[in-house]
Amino acid sequence: MNKPERIDKTASTEAVMRAIGESARAAAHELALASTQAKNTALRAAAEALRKAAPDVIAANAKDVAAAKMAGRIDAFVDRLLLEETRIAAIAKGLEEIAELPDPVGTVLAEWTRPNGLKFQRVRVPLGVIGIIYESRPNVTADAGALALKSGNAAILRGGSESHNSSRAIHACLVEGLKAAKLPEAAIQLVPTTDRAAVGHMLAGLDGAIDVIVPRGGKSLVERVQKEARVPVFAHLEGICHTYVDRDADLGMAVRVVLNAKLRRPGICGATETLLVDSGTPPTYLPTLVKALLDGGCEVRGDAEAKKVDKRVKPATQADWSSEYLDAIIAVKVVDGVEAAIEHIAKYGTQHTEAIITANTETAEHFLKAVDSAIVLHNASTQFADGGEFGFGAEIGIATGKMHARGPVGVEQLTTFKYLVRGSGQTRPM
Amino acid sequence: MNKPERIDKTASTEAVMRAIGESARAAAHELALASTQAKNTALRAAAEALRKAAPDVIAANAKDVAAAKMAGRIDAFVDRLLLEETRIAAIAKGLEEIAELPDPVGTVLAEWTRPNGLKFQRVRVPLGVIGIIYESRPNVTADAGALALKSGNAAILRGGSESHNSSRAIHACLVEGLKAAKLPEAAIQLVPTTDRAAVGHMLAGLDGAIDVIVPRGGKSLVERVQKEARVPVFAHLEGICHTYVDRDADLGMAVRVVLNAKLRRPGICGATETLLVDSGTPPTYLPTLVKALLDGGCEVRGDAEAKKVDKRVKPATQADWSSEYLDAIIAVKVVDGVEAAIEHIAKYGTQHTEAIITANTETAEHFLKAVDSAIVLHNASTQFADGGEFGFGAEIGIATGKMHARGPVGVEQLTTFKYLVRGSGQTRPM
Repeated sequence: MNKPERIDKTASTEAVMRAIGESARAAAHELALASTQAKNTALRAAAEALRKAAPDVIAANAKDVAAAKMAGRIDAFVDRLLLEETRIAAIAKGLEEIAELPDPVGTVLAEWTRPNGLKFQRVRVPLGVIGIIYESRPNVTADAGALALKSGNAAILRGGSESHNSSRAIHACLVEGLKAAKLPEAAIQLVPTTDRAAVGHMLAGLDGAIDVIVPRGGKSLVERVQKEARVPVFAHLEGICHTYVDRDADLGMAVRVVLNAKLRRPGICGATETLLVDSGTPPTYLPTLVKALLDGGCEVRGDAEAKKVDKRVKPATQADWSSEYLDAIIAVKVVDGVEAAIEHIAKYGTQHTEAIITANTETAEHFLKAVDSAIVLHNASTQFADGGEFGFGAEIGIATGKMHARGPVGVEQLTTFKYLVRGSGQTRPM
Repeated sequence: MNKPERIDKTASTEAVMRAIGESARAAAHELALASTQAKNTALRAAAEALRKAAPDVIAANAKDVAAAKMAGRIDAFVDRLLLEETRIAAIAKGLEEIAELPDPVGTVLAEWTRPNGLKFQRVRVPLGVIGIIYESRPNVTADAGALALKSGNAAILRGGSESHNSSRAIHACLVEGLKAAKLPEAAIQLVPTTDRAAVGHMLAGLDGAIDVIVPRGGKSLVERVQKEARVPVFAHLEGICHTYVDRDADLGMAVRVVLNAKLRRPGICGATETLLVDSGTPPTYLPTLVKALLDGGCEVRGDAEAKKVDKRVKPATQADWSSEYLDAIIAVKVVDGVEAAIEHIAKYGTQHTEAIITANTETAEHFLKAVDSAIVLHNASTQFADGGEFGFGAEIGIATGKMHARGPVGVEQLTTFKYLVRGSGQTRPM
């Protein structure tokens, strides 16, 4: 068993990271063979340890919070950082919920027999080692570590330096869980140094030790990871999500869904940023939608048509069609039917999540087929773009790339597969 | 419709490649919505065109062959390049066989309904644009173009300069097929320039136009592509495949399978390169296996134990355990049981294909579970590592990476998926 705590504290960051990579790789080999029961035992024991250690975690967190306040960080930042009883209880409960999820490893995805008698199986196996680079939310330590473990992967966690004390305290509980289940402690490692060079080493893949990197944080972090990573990345840079209200939409439904899609939580990646309204909708539609948004406290930036509706509407500029506000602001554009909506989305969208509101099934099916996004919805809020809402139990993020994982990244998406072929001495004809 | 032939021949390679990328992207949007029938019509019409154009293709090929001979290329190279009636007929038949394959696009991979009534579907969709970089085999033009088309992807083909005339003649037939089916001609583009800089542009992804690159050729090509590509790559660099003969193996089966695994076609990536023999096998096993290989015309490079068996056995050096001979040469090592075999494979293997020969199901299942390769076989020849043998109909190559495609890459592996969510006005609770 590899003990990450044995790392020489005087060693260079490069040496530290190399050792972490090597022990993660070794742990991944053990984890790939670990039983579902062992993994679940580790998760439940970690939850228990976390509940018991709540005072220590709160004390460690207090140091981070004090430092953040000293550094003049804004309230929202401090709030993301803060841990108290309720939040710690929620993190512990999250660990237990991940234990309850079905184990994806070993699932037979397909099986068939060939005429020569060879029996083929395509079976889910873990990816290997997952690097997670995140910012100030210390709960990511537990969530990401647990999802990696459940899917049989080793995790290398690199949290923001501002939450380092909090993350260390949480990580200690995860390690207690691993010990209780007799799983390698290196299954979930927290990078012990706050040296920023550690991130560079992870992005380079730690000499082939890291199979995939998941960034959790703001746009600048994701941008850096996507640009510099030499290994695959599961991420989305932006969620410029669209809701299109078609000529055949029910107005009541359209208003309800659009308000929810924008204003339920304007700051999540699945929030609608642009509302497209069909020019063929009845004349009451555009004004009703725009006024409902304005009255709901949303800033509306409209094209010429939308501006006519209400003097509170601000003029949209070209930049608005490419803006992820993550705030109570929406861009509104009138388009000539579903084809124009699809074209606008192809041009300005980020292949994250788009919705159509219409009672016309044919129009809806065309939209679902033609829009090239990870998630396409008919008559539902774009805020459903979430692993929990999909029934995945928990997600490590949402990916907008097309390779491997697309959409919410849950435990299944953290696996790959291999082919098992069982024979009775078959050879290929010469 | 984008007509690649309109490209200005005086334009810079960069401009040419950018235009190719843009028209491929546009074609990909059309192809994603193309019917199965249209795609199959194109493939069958291309086969027909190829049969009719056989004399032209042979004439074009003769130019390439003459140039290769002038350049003093070895016979094996010229043979790979050569096209005659039989080979052209085989290429045409290959196109028709791809038309016969089921269309992966639109397949519902999973569907479920959530308690709130939202209906989820995970549906196969094309990846987008596939770049294929290959060497002297002109048939790749047809095979790769057809597999991309069948899976709804646009293809950008960059063949070796030595086969450029041949590839152009074949490509013209593919374009005839596309025209006959009223599909965009830019669905399958052949890079018109032999300027090597074109490869660099493709590896950089053509401003985001290319979704994945598939290299087809020797190790140096694959190495360059894996090292320089800024987009995902489906490939394998080496296939250092192992066959392990366990103490519980049937000797007759072991000899048959090992001879086949090595000598049926020593030059394919699924050929066994290292034979591992359990030290617990009865004393007749190792000599019988080694002598059968030697008598079959195979050079044997053995460890100390294997060397004792026959004076024809050459001593294996450390380098032999990491060698992909692609020839009638095999490295032989005696290992202490299945765990030692698994360890050897983890250390020296390339995660391609490995086999165990044993009558002990428990040992076999442990090997299948513990070996982290794309393909793991029990009692069968490693030469089954082939899309055709898997029943995939045709393959564009074998991938040893763990992301997205692993093992034989057929039409299914050239797709991704998206989530379609159908509702009746659902919103997320505030």
